[in-house]
Amino acid sequence: MASKESKRSSAKGKKEVKKETGLGLTYKKDENFGEWYSEVVVNAEMIEYYDISGCYIVRPWAMSIWEIMQTFFDAEIKKMNIKNCYFPLFVTPAALQKEKDHVEGFAPEVAWVTKSGDSELEVPIAIRPTSETIMYPYFSKWIRGHRDLPLRLNQWCNVVRWEFSHPTPFIRSREFLWQEGHTAFATKEEADAEVLDILELYRRIYEEFLAIPVTKGKKSELEKFAGGLYTTTVEAFIPNSGRGIQGATSHCLGQNFAKMSEIFFENEKGEKAMVWQNSWAYTTRTIGVMVMVHGDDKGLVLPPKVASLQVIVIPVPYKDADTQGIFDACSSTVQKLLECGIRVEADIRDNYSPGWKYSHWEMKGVPLRIEIGPKDLANKQVRVVRRDNGAKIDIPMESIAEDVKGMLVAIQQNLFDVAKQKRNACVQVANTWDEFVKALNDKKLVLAPWCDEKDVEKDVKARTKGEMGAAKTLCCPFEQPELPEGTLCFASGKPAKIWSYWGRSY
Amino acid sequence: MASKESKRSSAKGKKEVKKETGLGLTYKKDENFGEWYSEVVVNAEMIEYYDISGCYIVRPWAMSIWEIMQTFFDAEIKKMNIKNCYFPLFVTPAALQKEKDHVEGFAPEVAWVTKSGDSELEVPIAIRPTSETIMYPYFSKWIRGHRDLPLRLNQWCNVVRWEFSHPTPFIRSREFLWQEGHTAFATKEEADAEVLDILELYRRIYEEFLAIPVTKGKKSELEKFAGGLYTTTVEAFIPNSGRGIQGATSHCLGQNFAKMSEIFFENEKGEKAMVWQNSWAYTTRTIGVMVMVHGDDKGLVLPPKVASLQVIVIPVPYKDADTQGIFDACSSTVQKLLECGIRVEADIRDNYSPGWKYSHWEMKGVPLRIEIGPKDLANKQVRVVRRDNGAKIDIPMESIAEDVKGMLVAIQQNLFDVAKQKRNACVQVANTWDEFVKALNDKKLVLAPWCDEKDVEKDVKARTKGEMGAAKTLCCPFEQPELPEGTLCFASGKPAKIWSYWGRSY
Repeated sequence: MASKESKRSSAKGKKEVKKETGLGLTYKKDENFGEWYSEVVVNAEMIEYYDISGCYIVRPWAMSIWEIMQTFFDAEIKKMNIKNCYFPLFVTPAALQKEKDHVEGFAPEVAWVTKSGDSELEVPIAIRPTSETIMYPYFSKWIRGHRDLPLRLNQWCNVVRWEFSHPTPFIRSREFLWQEGHTAFATKEEADAEVLDILELYRRIYEEFLAIPVTKGKKSELEKFAGGLYTTTVEAFIPNSGRGIQGATSHCLGQNFAKMSEIFFENEKGEKAMVWQNSWAYTTRTIGVMVMVHGDDKGLVLPPKVASLQVIVIPVPYKDADTQGIFDACSSTVQKLLECGIRVEADIRDNYSPGWKYSHWEMKGVPLRIEIGPKDLANKQVRVVRRDNGAKIDIPMESIAEDVKGMLVAIQQNLFDVAKQKRNACVQVANTWDEFVKALNDKKLVLAPWCDEKDVEKDVKARTKGEMGAAKTLCCPFEQPELPEGTLCFASGKPAKIWSYWGRSY
Repeated sequence: MASKESKRSSAKGKKEVKKETGLGLTYKKDENFGEWYSEVVVNAEMIEYYDISGCYIVRPWAMSIWEIMQTFFDAEIKKMNIKNCYFPLFVTPAALQKEKDHVEGFAPEVAWVTKSGDSELEVPIAIRPTSETIMYPYFSKWIRGHRDLPLRLNQWCNVVRWEFSHPTPFIRSREFLWQEGHTAFATKEEADAEVLDILELYRRIYEEFLAIPVTKGKKSELEKFAGGLYTTTVEAFIPNSGRGIQGATSHCLGQNFAKMSEIFFENEKGEKAMVWQNSWAYTTRTIGVMVMVHGDDKGLVLPPKVASLQVIVIPVPYKDADTQGIFDACSSTVQKLLECGIRVEADIRDNYSPGWKYSHWEMKGVPLRIEIGPKDLANKQVRVVRRDNGAKIDIPMESIAEDVKGMLVAIQQNLFDVAKQKRNACVQVANTWDEFVKALNDKKLVLAPWCDEKDVEKDVKARTKGEMGAAKTLCCPFEQPELPEGTLCFASGKPAKIWSYWGRSY
């Protein structure tokens, strides 16, 4: 069988032999981070590369993570009385081009349909890169009076941005899945409040589900959403590459789109007024950030809250031992844990050794492994091995459900704590240009006093351009350190107005 | 305010004035069925027409129905160990064209992306009309041995079929939402069994959720899925138009796609074998069938199981009466019903009369209306009005939760019973060509003995061509009436082999 398989594999590309064994990674996270990432998403069976560049197959192991986050987020926004809907994938050039700044931001990446069957379309049709210009003409139609407000819609869908910079699974792909919320309010106060409510949900997705620390903050004028008023963000950081990554964004669009789409309403005083709008989104990128932050040289490491399989039970039979007893103990363990709502399976395949199974499930990042062998059976215990830190603990059969529950909570917390500690260790304050450049080259997350001027950010980008990409603002954190009077901007030497995080980014 | 609104409306198109009032339909279901349908999906706020022909906006009122069905179906297939995934929207011409019959079936409707930004793509890329040719090359990669089988995947996504025949909201649109399941088995027996398991879920969606009777059966050779082995279907019927409608299909693909995509595996004997495959899907069309079957001249009629709002509570204050008491009774009614898991809201808007509200919620199809006025308050009762049959019943406050629960069950059952009775009344047996043509012209669902030959079906299509569209087989029902020996085919006069349903269809 091995020879037949390697023949098939070699016909298709060299990566497959490794995948076949599922036993280990060629690259190390600290040595070849980019290659390590590409390998781990494939070997852990999250992603399959597709024959169109920049498009990826999201396999069930990754899709289940997306679904768990979706269940959480969808329930939360429904509590806020936000309703799901579905707008078309396609948009006419006329609608797409209505908002000038907005279309400038997206135009280079828009995919155009020009043919159906063998016929040319009369007018080419764009595929949505985002849905502001698709939705808002209808907001104008549906909103008449103040009683029609707020209008709060969301959709779960795919979007297409035909980018030409390095495609990376989850992180930067030409098609991706997301939710996009689009809302309209009578007052700016209500819009402002929602922006932060949603941002808090995004923080919870990262911190509570994916165990990834993020910084809440505001994007600079240069980095804000094209056509919007201001953009808030949860920013994560990848220590291995020294790059920031925009986790999810919640935009206040102000009244700019409302003006273009003529979204007026009659207010309580009977006057004609214009709505205030928000839009907000998070994408499958979340999964990539999780892989980058927690993965190790053995493969993926899944936080228990997003793991579709939290515990894998592996029988470890021994030739003279009571094999049936071991398998029965595995079954009853699975049963006990299932009854407590733990997502658990036993791997009772007889064509793989326990050692192979250990490696396999480590690659896939399952948070806890339970081994049951003759000695465990005799002692009425099981051996539990943590994926996050490799710790091995024998726990009595009797208290297995509570113990495992407790360990899953501990793993979730530990992953977050370790990630936060690593992230914090990367933060470097830079007060001068030289300090800034050094910190950047040391792959730090740079916190610097800034004059908050667009041209200065442009200048920093120009001066740091190079193979690694230019540095830019990541966000101005809501939690601002003290800024003593007289502090100067690290880049322009003008008086600093704000602390901002800077760095290269994904 | 009214004058301002009608000004805005007239600026945008004449349909809107009516929508604004939400009070009634211009067309009657029995007189102008097509116009009635277009009007009801808009006025009930399910659909908004979009500025690209054949694309529609699915508004929250319709989306919530889709989500309820999705929750059911997704849980059921997960029990069957079918896993969700996501494959790309795009497919290369080479992959799309691999299976000849299949591509012939879909080619005329394929939308092609040829440009991104201002650049021409090197090779045009197709948007998926369905995902067989996208997925199966990767099935080939993932499946090696019998232990990799069965492979059972599903995705919830959008697909695009750029059809030029009459677009109709939900029923025939250029983009629609669906789930598509794609599975591979070691044996034909397993594949055959799954085809029927899934078909049973589709029956349950129609009969248990949408309260629509369907017929399970097999498609003819001419009507089966392009490239597949055989197609099973749940067929519904629309009495008003006298047309059949394919509800959802579950295909056994046999080994045809497996051959093209080289999906081999090593079986338990160590031999090279080829997988057996299925694919199956249901779409947002389900919602359209529901509107057509249950709707009436007052608007939509929602079966309680798919209604996002099952009960609307309306206060009916009277000038001298205890208005606060009435509003309090509405609140406590809502509270009691919510606690029983009933989806309920109160409409306490003060700018609409009770009468306007009755019409509004009737248009939207809410199954039960509860009215609370001074007399009800005095008598410790509420008045309940059924949407399905208009029945008005006073029920005591005390037993409201159980009574309402029971009524919702009764409405669900009654909708199904009435629909089934109407459908059954349309079935007409035709033994001869003349009987067949007469039944067709009488808008009947024709059951006829047939020789089961492809050329005869082609001939029937040719002979019935006309303004209304040609007649074709809808399905050969699994439950076959007795076919006495010597029975002849209604169309060819050859010996009949099977009973088949025939009709015009959507």
